[in-house]
Amino acid sequence: MFDTAVIGTGPAGLSAAINLKLHNKDIIWFGSEKMSEKIRISEKIANYPGIPFATGEEMAAAFESHRQQMGLEITDRMVSLIMPTDTGFSILADNDIYEARTIILATGVVTSKELPGENALVGRGVSYCATCDGFLHKGKTIAVLSTSERFEHEVKYLAELAEKVYFFPYYRNPAVSRDNVEVMDQKISSVNGDNRIESITLADGRELNVSCLFCMRDSIAPTTILSSLATEKNRIIVDRDMATNIPGAFACGDCTGTPYQIAKAVGEGNAAAHSAIKYLASV
Amino acid sequence: MFDTAVIGTGPAGLSAAINLKLHNKDIIWFGSEKMSEKIRISEKIANYPGIPFATGEEMAAAFESHRQQMGLEITDRMVSLIMPTDTGFSILADNDIYEARTIILATGVVTSKELPGENALVGRGVSYCATCDGFLHKGKTIAVLSTSERFEHEVKYLAELAEKVYFFPYYRNPAVSRDNVEVMDQKISSVNGDNRIESITLADGRELNVSCLFCMRDSIAPTTILSSLATEKNRIIVDRDMATNIPGAFACGDCTGTPYQIAKAVGEGNAAAHSAIKYLASV
Repeated sequence: MFDTAVIGTGPAGLSAAINLKLHNKDIIWFGSEKMSEKIRISEKIANYPGIPFATGEEMAAAFESHRQQMGLEITDRMVSLIMPTDTGFSILADNDIYEARTIILATGVVTSKELPGENALVGRGVSYCATCDGFLHKGKTIAVLSTSERFEHEVKYLAELAEKVYFFPYYRNPAVSRDNVEVMDQKISSVNGDNRIESITLADGRELNVSCLFCMRDSIAPTTILSSLATEKNRIIVDRDMATNIPGAFACGDCTGTPYQIAKAVGEGNAAAHSAIKYLASV
Repeated sequence: MFDTAVIGTGPAGLSAAINLKLHNKDIIWFGSEKMSEKIRISEKIANYPGIPFATGEEMAAAFESHRQQMGLEITDRMVSLIMPTDTGFSILADNDIYEARTIILATGVVTSKELPGENALVGRGVSYCATCDGFLHKGKTIAVLSTSERFEHEVKYLAELAEKVYFFPYYRNPAVSRDNVEVMDQKISSVNGDNRIESITLADGRELNVSCLFCMRDSIAPTTILSSLATEKNRIIVDRDMATNIPGAFACGDCTGTPYQIAKAVGEGNAAAHSAIKYLASV
């Protein structure tokens, strides 16, 4: 049982992790080992006080150096489900379950919208976890949507199980070439089915019958992984102490709303960590 | 008429000023040219993401460098009074009045408590502005409390006017030596008087008759300078957008409450600036 699980490795998650570690908390930190891709590809960041006019690469290097100097390890797994329990939270990441007394959500802004029909079919053919649900679709025809090259190993994994994979890379220069993988050059416009998925409709109107749609996104809508979370217009509702509506669950950074800024993210990460520390002392 | 007056030159004020300047706002920035003394004297700051394990001097230098690279000028004046007007705010700093459409309060945490009796006698012998009220006490016996050497030039100015100055330095190694200045080695325990000040009582019980008490503090309680501001336990009440109860007035940093952290301060300064920019566009 960890004291705190931090979900997200952008600046908010980093700030939270640093402060928890400094307070000797036993933490697990989920997210991409590359940390924030959004920072890395920034041309110039002028308004992070103390590091004037940094390139994205320089800023990313400064954060990476801080992580290393603190001895903070990242668990490069995708959290797909969180369930509140009597003693804290159960967290499903890839196909392992982790337990933590508190959680800090630093999941970033959800840039890709849900597909029409997607939400109603979660667990009924729509999945966010290849290693969890892949085996259910052995020998079948499936679709995979991915927003990043970092999910390509999962696409390859699914290609080994499925008979046929319609692969929708929502990024440039995908590098998956298998006989049974058809790389699609258009987007999905809807997910169809009553009780469970039957087909997907493409932008050009074509319909493809599939037994499953795997959605691999860098950021998942927070309510998708933690359904009882109170949100408003896709942002997690927090108070001034970064507490959400769920006791022991805190949030920080872009997922709590605008402004989408590094300074705001590190500030909220700091505050969320201090609130989690206070919470841990009180229960 | 400035777009925004930023009050305070700690990390919250710096973050606000940087963002306003980047958005081409016409700003005036009040506070100490030395910026945050609290940062400068810190031994080690481990938790400001991107600048790992900096000494206070290093952190202060990084902030100063950012200020210079942005071409941000500091007006080294003490704001003693702010009045909401029809078009924004009138700001009294030393003995000049400035006008701004919005204000951002980044005044820091008030470490020195008000003296018993002080609040009731503001404007009735208790003053926060030597250059404003000094001339009223020509040839009289006055007391001056100061929390920092940066006010010593004002003590000297008052010594030129008054017949006698009881000087209470609340810091080490004061450097004011004048024939008519008595440097006191104890603290003031109360300010006395019905309609106006009559005397001050010292910690040892001694009472000194004075015509005025000048209180020179690095941070003034925000309600002392802006009386209609809603506060709770000495912190300014703000919402998630850093808006106070007064339209056009925003606050950020330690003055809005714990945690007292650089990361939290820069985050709130960023958010306050963005809220002010939005407000300016709406009125």
